[in-house]
Amino acid sequence: MLLGLLAAAPPAKLLTPSDIVASAPASAWKTIPADDLLVMDLANGGQIVIQLAPAFAPVHVANVRGLARGHYWDGATVYRVQDNYVAQWGLNESDKPWPAGVTAKPPAEYTRVVRGLSITPLGSPDAYAPAAGFADGWPVGYSAKARRANLAHCYGSVGVGRDLSPDTGTGGELYAVIGQAPRQLDRNIALVGRVVEGIDRLSSLPRGTGDIGFYKDKAEYVPIASIRLASDMPAAERPSYEYMDTASATFARYLKLRANRHDAFYDVPAGGVDLCNVQVPVRKKP
Amino acid sequence: MLLGLLAAAPPAKLLTPSDIVASAPASAWKTIPADDLLVMDLANGGQIVIQLAPAFAPVHVANVRGLARGHYWDGATVYRVQDNYVAQWGLNESDKPWPAGVTAKPPAEYTRVVRGLSITPLGSPDAYAPAAGFADGWPVGYSAKARRANLAHCYGSVGVGRDLSPDTGTGGELYAVIGQAPRQLDRNIALVGRVVEGIDRLSSLPRGTGDIGFYKDKAEYVPIASIRLASDMPAAERPSYEYMDTASATFARYLKLRANRHDAFYDVPAGGVDLCNVQVPVRKKP
Repeated sequence: MLLGLLAAAPPAKLLTPSDIVASAPASAWKTIPADDLLVMDLANGGQIVIQLAPAFAPVHVANVRGLARGHYWDGATVYRVQDNYVAQWGLNESDKPWPAGVTAKPPAEYTRVVRGLSITPLGSPDAYAPAAGFADGWPVGYSAKARRANLAHCYGSVGVGRDLSPDTGTGGELYAVIGQAPRQLDRNIALVGRVVEGIDRLSSLPRGTGDIGFYKDKAEYVPIASIRLASDMPAAERPSYEYMDTASATFARYLKLRANRHDAFYDVPAGGVDLCNVQVPVRKKP
Repeated sequence: MLLGLLAAAPPAKLLTPSDIVASAPASAWKTIPADDLLVMDLANGGQIVIQLAPAFAPVHVANVRGLARGHYWDGATVYRVQDNYVAQWGLNESDKPWPAGVTAKPPAEYTRVVRGLSITPLGSPDAYAPAAGFADGWPVGYSAKARRANLAHCYGSVGVGRDLSPDTGTGGELYAVIGQAPRQLDRNIALVGRVVEGIDRLSSLPRGTGDIGFYKDKAEYVPIASIRLASDMPAAERPSYEYMDTASATFARYLKLRANRHDAFYDVPAGGVDLCNVQVPVRKKP
């Protein structure tokens, strides 16, 4: 009865993860360089902005930049949308030559050395790696023993389509995750970044009814007007974003609350959290 | 060099999880009772079929059946679609009285005793519960010590919308998960089932631009033609489904392969798998 009475008293306002983000100091944010922003405009008007991850897949990211600068993607479409998996775009089985400077057969940039990364541990167990955490703004799996880290496939992650191993893909065909994190792809495919704006433009597309979500009819393909680097756009049109420094005290508080929701909606804080349920905060530069 | 040569040799065909499902014996499948199938027809023609979970939330499931039989949902719509989270439907803030027999304030059916459940352990660590696995066809978190189990919020899971705790919701407003498993909701909200057909009809809807994904304009609401129990439909129209027995040897093989993809696409089997990446196979009855 006493517990009931106490529960009925108006609770103090308890912080949510969003509150932490909203009140984060300027020092907790890092600007994304314009050369690391890939801007994809759909012909119907939607815009998707992707942050590239050159620290993890330098050759593939250099390719993506070269493909954008070389106008490789003129005429590209979204041609595959598989429910609870990926949306994929590019030229789809094209013979178009790679622009100059693009490496047709990049190395398998699936993991990298942990040296040089600042890793904040997740603090919860992970099914796919000895440990999970956040490295320089990115969700990663890692092995302290092997001293290797890999970008994790989370919602919004962008990777390079490829054929069967040992092919690693050139970068002309990209996909974004639009469902439950397909972490089994970690260490098997090159991730080059993540969608920081407009993922809903991809996730809400009709699902393809062909094998593994390919659109059966070319009339279903979703036309892409342009794919450009922000650094190649006129200054006035150029989008600018910042992400939360995952080594900051603010991020540590955000992470802790993500694992222990205690605001009024929740009875039982989980006491743990999945790597891909801690989205690193990203926002338009104020 | 030798490794390179070996790798270049044509590999033996290695089984995928889909191969296991395709070759599963009849004994590995269990029919879903017609009283456990909720059939939702969108006015635009799409059909969504939900398997109910009376073993986990008996009062809430009884409510859902009573709401369907009492035609409570006449005029219902999908009125909220939040990206990477949920699609939600019902009457949205209606004063319509509950049909006879519906329990307005059900108990908090967030966990249940493990006694009576046949649990197959996942075999990988879980961030949200002491252990995870599959109980009578459902993904669950559980505690051997507390002897309690809870349905897990995975892609396609269907739960009961509610206001702030200790309200548990009546069942008139339901949601389906359309993104990364929001496992923080486990043990905080009543799950009543999962979508077994047509989740793509919900996941591909336009996202709401209001707070937490509500459609701002009623013109955006997606009309629902009917929500019925399969057991109340004419036999000729009635859909029939079966799910894989999660205590079967076939499911054990499927689970093992989900955690260790070794077919030609993969270089590195994960050696582990997330609970929500092991979707229990469900299919139309042949």
